Amino acid sequence: MMIVSSSARTMDPQKVLEKIGKLQASDLLPQNMENWEQTELFLKEVVRILLAYIKEENDRSSKILEFHHPAEMATLCDLQIPEKPQNLEDLLKSCEAVLKLGVKTGHPRFFNQISCGLDLVSMAGEWLTATANTNMFTYEISPVFILMEKEVTRKMIELIGWGEGEGDAIFAPGGAIANLYAMNAARHAKFPRVKPLGMTDIPTLCCFTSEDSHYSIKGAAAVTGVGTDMCFNIPTDSRGRMIPEALEMEVIKRKKMGLHPFFVSATAGTTVYGAWDPLHQIADICERHHLWFHVDAAWGGGLLLSPEYRHRLSGIERANSLTWNPHKLMGALLQCSACFIRQDGLLFQTNQMSADYLFQQDKPYDVSYDTGDKAMQCGRHNDIFKLWLMWRSKGMEGYRAQVNRLMELAAYFTARIKQTEGYELVVDPPEFLNICFWYVPPSLRHLDEAEKKARLEKIAPKIKAKMMERGTTMVGYQPDKQRPNFFRMIISNQAITRHDLDFLVQEIIDIGKGL
Amino acid sequence: MMIVSSSARTMDPQKVLEKIGKLQASDLLPQNMENWEQTELFLKEVVRILLAYIKEENDRSSKILEFHHPAEMATLCDLQIPEKPQNLEDLLKSCEAVLKLGVKTGHPRFFNQISCGLDLVSMAGEWLTATANTNMFTYEISPVFILMEKEVTRKMIELIGWGEGEGDAIFAPGGAIANLYAMNAARHAKFPRVKPLGMTDIPTLCCFTSEDSHYSIKGAAAVTGVGTDMCFNIPTDSRGRMIPEALEMEVIKRKKMGLHPFFVSATAGTTVYGAWDPLHQIADICERHHLWFHVDAAWGGGLLLSPEYRHRLSGIERANSLTWNPHKLMGALLQCSACFIRQDGLLFQTNQMSADYLFQQDKPYDVSYDTGDKAMQCGRHNDIFKLWLMWRSKGMEGYRAQVNRLMELAAYFTARIKQTEGYELVVDPPEFLNICFWYVPPSLRHLDEAEKKARLEKIAPKIKAKMMERGTTMVGYQPDKQRPNFFRMIISNQAITRHDLDFLVQEIIDIGKGL
Repeated sequence: MMIVSSSARTMDPQKVLEKIGKLQASDLLPQNMENWEQTELFLKEVVRILLAYIKEENDRSSKILEFHHPAEMATLCDLQIPEKPQNLEDLLKSCEAVLKLGVKTGHPRFFNQISCGLDLVSMAGEWLTATANTNMFTYEISPVFILMEKEVTRKMIELIGWGEGEGDAIFAPGGAIANLYAMNAARHAKFPRVKPLGMTDIPTLCCFTSEDSHYSIKGAAAVTGVGTDMCFNIPTDSRGRMIPEALEMEVIKRKKMGLHPFFVSATAGTTVYGAWDPLHQIADICERHHLWFHVDAAWGGGLLLSPEYRHRLSGIERANSLTWNPHKLMGALLQCSACFIRQDGLLFQTNQMSADYLFQQDKPYDVSYDTGDKAMQCGRHNDIFKLWLMWRSKGMEGYRAQVNRLMELAAYFTARIKQTEGYELVVDPPEFLNICFWYVPPSLRHLDEAEKKARLEKIAPKIKAKMMERGTTMVGYQPDKQRPNFFRMIISNQAITRHDLDFLVQEIIDIGKGL
Repeated sequence: MMIVSSSARTMDPQKVLEKIGKLQASDLLPQNMENWEQTELFLKEVVRILLAYIKEENDRSSKILEFHHPAEMATLCDLQIPEKPQNLEDLLKSCEAVLKLGVKTGHPRFFNQISCGLDLVSMAGEWLTATANTNMFTYEISPVFILMEKEVTRKMIELIGWGEGEGDAIFAPGGAIANLYAMNAARHAKFPRVKPLGMTDIPTLCCFTSEDSHYSIKGAAAVTGVGTDMCFNIPTDSRGRMIPEALEMEVIKRKKMGLHPFFVSATAGTTVYGAWDPLHQIADICERHHLWFHVDAAWGGGLLLSPEYRHRLSGIERANSLTWNPHKLMGALLQCSACFIRQDGLLFQTNQMSADYLFQQDKPYDVSYDTGDKAMQCGRHNDIFKLWLMWRSKGMEGYRAQVNRLMELAAYFTARIKQTEGYELVVDPPEFLNICFWYVPPSLRHLDEAEKKARLEKIAPKIKAKMMERGTTMVGYQPDKQRPNFFRMIISNQAITRHDLDFLVQEIIDIGKGL
């Protein structure tokens, strides 16, 4: 592997196309084992396209997107499945076209989602994952990745702060499924007979979450047959944090009505405001009323990596379960999400179906390493390698610095907003890396509050639409309760600099001027 | 993008390490925007490692694995999360080590799972997907991929044979979750009040699937709160096909007991035997009893691509829902799985939670393209591009040829087994690409049936263990009902040749000789 053949060199794309453009996939490996050289040229040409994209994405002067309406977009890219095979030139052109028409979510000025940025080590990890193309159900076919998952989750459990012998985990395809795992495990812990016999013979279950929590908690209530109306919304304070007294009142009220409370989901870092529910107080209530205490730390979990800020999650060590998405604050590629269950063995008990064809007991190794039977999924994508490789590349120290730096940038942006005319914070000071704000154009500034509010509702969508036309930056907006549409700025991309934040502040002013 | 700098050339790995080995990830993009050249060198070095792996994996003389027990494996690879960042040299060495210690699931002689093989176009697609790193919830951030998913599912619905205006779909993280989608939609179609109110106020639901069906049907019954014991196993015939008369008797019996049957899952291509449940007869029963008719075609769905063999799925067009995993027979990279629902709009009705922060109605484009609200997940991995690019590379014609060729290879292998001493087919002839067989070593051949059976139970595990030690090939085994452990050969990797099948036949003889 030390000597590189001349064919392995990256050549002029035009020459590559002359050489392999008219070939088809069936001329390459694994269909045609003779043509390694051509196979290598094709894959290297794909990589050349990807590298050019990465370079452009990191160039701040490049556009984040070229916006097209769906009907127009459909004419710009031939998406249909053809009768005849497309040749390699067509495939390579498709790759370029798709990247050109897409949204550069790793661009340093893309602030639109909670998961932003493209960590290139994590990306390299995902390329390897694709090449290894294995499945996480057994040690038999994924020996290294299974051990890696064990090791990384052990580290994460240590950060959560659970005790010796406590804690089990499963990587899940996203936070919504992780929350579903937790609710299902909670039900199993309380009423194990639901697994065989269903919900018929038990009291009417109900659960609680704050009105600012993620919609997947209600989603889990729907899927499990608990019911969305049996998932009660607890009011939040003006900063978006669950009011614990309101929770306890609601629990007592629902008990009196004959319902059976079983599950409370607190949020560590809410989706819109980034708020921190008071975990200790909620844990106390859960203890008093014998309720399962779940923490949805999908977004906020990453803060456990910072000794300076992890106190915001104080009380998380009392959780019975929690969701933590490394594809959010930690910057792993999508998807990378895990559900942690404190009671060891419960994941197995809840989910095992003991399929003979996969989980034979007479295998030649210790079959306790076959994690598949604790999963709700059968086949399970390898989401661990991209996280592990990235984490190794940063170490604990690097992550600490990265997370702290993002928190400092959020403080900087907050200060900028506060001192810039026309900007108003929705929550002041922000709780986390979400900075929610209105931009009030000059024409609205002297209106009375009621009219200003009514007209403000339409400002964010207008600014956003123009922003997408310009393609220079992207930030999300939404209304909330009685509040008119406001922007939600997210600072989670490690590529962001102060200069990018200054840019956003000015860009919105420029766009908003004429409104 | 036409001129390639000299730095873009692949250089001697030793020189690369001298140049960048001591750097850290924080010296590269996106943390350090100055160092594009070093970033490119790092990523190209990763690609060099991956290409070397691909080349080796496709070399039949290479070993599929070097087996190590878990405790030993843990000593061969440092998996822990360090305090300090690892440098690029360490990261690159980790990539090589992980690949070396893993199982080469794309090796032409790896026959162990239903999803085998590494299609390099699909892999290139997954590399691009990783680089684009976007999320499938809205058109806003995934315009091209959302349209692509629409186009590909339209094609798949056409292959299923549903009528004009029928059919909706969602890509799901694996067949188990796809089956869960289907059961949940079926319940919603019948009892929409379960979504808000839970299972309390409705009759006791029950469902039916064959005893040879995939365990995820019972898994879905557990999660939804229906209960695994309320999921009744219908007996199969000696070829593994559901006995429709037994289904109807069971439905009538359970109704008489006061249960409320609502869902039947037929399997098109069972996991172990590859059997085809009689879809038309099951559809008739479902019509008579007003039951939702689901078809789990996770494995068999790919046969719809062959005009010569698709008749085996005749009746699938009558399904209310179906699961189809392109990561199985179609050879897409893991994971690629879809759930199809015939009644348009039902997926939305079942799963929508109307989150304001994602699915605003005042966006500047037609928001019906925001598919996120029909998903059970919130963030959703892009599983479409790797399928689309691969399908384009083959066209309908290429897939037809590929699937037909696999069917011919299965017939060839079956004939070889039948004519080779010591081999016995479990199901003769096999129904699909699963060929289940025993190998009876010479020492057992003259025993009486009872003793032979008892001793046969231990033969497959022993041969498998030796096979893993040798690392030359891999094939799965399991017991079933009264049958002792037998091998389940799967022919789904397009790289397989007759020579590979001959090799397996001989290898088992060689290993089994001494037993």
